[in-house]
Formats: sequence, C-alpha cells, structure tokens
Amino acid sequence: MPQGKPSVVPDDGLTTRQRRNRPLVFVHTGPGKGKSTAAFGLALRAWNQGWPIGVFQFVKSAKWKVGEENALRTLGASGEGGTVDWHKMGEGWSWIQRAPAEGESTNEDKAREGWEQVKRDLAAERYRLYVLDEFAYPLHWGWIDTAEVISVLRQRPGTQHVVITGRNAPPELLGFADLVTEMTKVKHPMDEGQKGQRGIEW
Amino acid sequence: MPQGKPSVVPDDGLTTRQRRNRPLVFVHTGPGKGKSTAAFGLALRAWNQGWPIGVFQFVKSAKWKVGEENALRTLGASGEGGTVDWHKMGEGWSWIQRAPAEGESTNEDKAREGWEQVKRDLAAERYRLYVLDEFAYPLHWGWIDTAEVISVLRQRPGTQHVVITGRNAPPELLGFADLVTEMTKVKHPMDEGQKGQRGIEW
Repeated sequence: MPQGKPSVVPDDGLTTRQRRNRPLVFVHTGPGKGKSTAAFGLALRAWNQGWPIGVFQFVKSAKWKVGEENALRTLGASGEGGTVDWHKMGEGWSWIQRAPAEGESTNEDKAREGWEQVKRDLAAERYRLYVLDEFAYPLHWGWIDTAEVISVLRQRPGTQHVVITGRNAPPELLGFADLVTEMTKVKHPMDEGQKGQRGIEW
Repeated sequence: MPQGKPSVVPDDGLTTRQRRNRPLVFVHTGPGKGKSTAAFGLALRAWNQGWPIGVFQFVKSAKWKVGEENALRTLGASGEGGTVDWHKMGEGWSWIQRAPAEGESTNEDKAREGWEQVKRDLAAERYRLYVLDEFAYPLHWGWIDTAEVISVLRQRPGTQHVVITGRNAPPELLGFADLVTEMTKVKHPMDEGQKGQRGIEW
C-alpha cells in the first residue's frame, strides 16, 4: 500500500506538479492471474477521472473478458466519467496460429495492424489511458518489434498512460516501464481439476 | 491464460456441473500493486453475470479506491448487471492505530464489527461475490482469528465466492484458499521519486 509518498526525491529538475502528471507505462506480467483484471481495475480509476480510455485486445477467445467489456462499455455510456473505446484485433482473432485462407491476413498481420492503430492514436493523443491487453505476446513472439514499441512510447506526446499485460513481457520492455508488477501463481483451482466458471474466468 | 481446461480430472465424485459451480475463495497477496485492483476487476465479471456484490473495505484512507467505488456504484445502479453494496468499516476508519477517545471504538473493534457483518451476510447468502478488501491486515495483526475465518468460510452455504486482498495473508489462509495470486513488485515509480497520481493511485 504505497502512501503516495516517494521513498526518494529525485534530482531531475521537475516540479512536484510535473512529477505528479508524468505519463506512465505499466507492465503486468508473470504466470499468475490478475494481469488483465488489474489493468481493467485501473481503468475504473481513469474512468472516474473522466479520462478517455482505449482498450486494445490483442488476444481474444470466445468468452474471455466479456464481463469487463460490458462493464466498461456501460460505464463509458453512463454519461458520468470518461469514455471507453474497446478495440478487438480482428474480430475472432486468436493467438493460436492457424493456416490463413487465401487472401486472409494472418494473426501476425492483425497484431501489427492493431499496433499501427495504437501508434496513430498515441500520435493524435486520442486517449488518456491505453490498455494494451495481452500485448506482451506479440512482442515475445517477435511479431512486433519491442525496440520500436519502446521508441514510440518514449516519444509519445502529452500525458498518455499505457498499461501492457501478458506473460513473458520482453526484458527490454520491463527495463523501460515505469511500473512492473509480476503476478505469481501460488495456487490455482484448475490445478486441482476445478473447471473455469462463468463470472470468475469470464 | 487458463483455457478453462483443468490439468487433471479429480476423483471427487462431483459432476462437471458441480465443479463448475463450486464456491471459491481467492486471496491476492504479496508486496506488489494490483491486489485490490484485480479484485475489483473480478467484480466487473460478477456484475456482468447479474450477481449481487458486496464490497467490504477493511482499510480506508481519504482518497483510495474512490475511482473503483464510484465505478462499481454506477454499474450497480445502471439497471443492467448485478447490484453493488459498498461497505466501509467505520467511515474514516484507518488501519493506523491511534488512541481512541473515551467511548470511541478502536480500529480493532471496527474490524471485528465488519467481520461480524460479513458473517451475517454469508449466513443469509446475501451476495454472490464478496470483496473483503485489505482483510489480510486484521488477520495478520491477530485482530480477527484466522482459524475462525477459515471455519466460517468452509461452512458458508450456497455458492458464495469470496476474494480477500492484502499483504501478509496468513499461511493458514493461503493453505485454505482455492486460488492464491502473489503480486510481486518488480519496479515501482515511487521508488524513483514519482508522486502518486490522480487516476493512477486513486
């Protein structure tokens, strides 16, 4: 529970106000639960501040995150708080590679298209909070160049916060990020034969 | 990313349907960020299922979690999804002990009163999801008896899911819980003098 008090005062020439409004990059990684869930929880705070929020789902399955999506869309449409745009990288897109049909773009193409959209939105300062959900996967697989991502994030204008989730986030990204949390699985009911449950897993 | 498939099929005499509806106890612990945030993210899924949700804040400060509270209250009042009751253990209650005034109840008393309320609600099957936020603290400090909590949770009726958050959750609780995630702090901007930010920390 950080108390809002930094443990050191940096010698960076910034005022307290400037430091309070520094755009941040968060990474939630590791094998445990809660990486995306915590990112959507963070979006609740952003919504409460009236910030425009852009969610980019880089991994999709039939029913995952429909709860978060419905909740955030409902909040975005409530007339209070911020707006919410929810982008899915190619509807029905899955991170499990299959042979693309003639003329069909591959998952790799779709992930890159998603990143190109994020770049355009960052350049236009379209959102105040970006949730790049499961974005660590296309980076880990080399579909998208981590060095380019870091360069784009480093040069983004204004005060745009970015949360990246997913297992196996590249070390260079962790080195660049302002806040890194690793979720460690201590115990999971599926290890003991528990089935995924509605309301819990999706 | 669990796929909803258990890694073993248990020999517990339960049907798949029974296993799908097993009431679960989650613990989010460890020194990293995201313990409470992931619990509120989980509440979004529960809301989307139309479940009644009870949040019990065992630790409160002036501005923490106001974003999550406003968002969940807005969702609960939206006419879609489930209901949300948000309980604060004694308004203004803080986990930092101070000398109580004459006749004023102590933090320890207030934490126990909160737990008594949770017990009544569990017995009445009032909620389908309970977020016992920062409940690990009064357990860790011995204000509330962990063995009693485990006994009450073990015997709770119906299908009531319970999420407990907080650093230093007692080992007995971790042993009892169905799902334990430890949030590990890899890097935090306050270590480098970053101030807590509106929309990010609260």
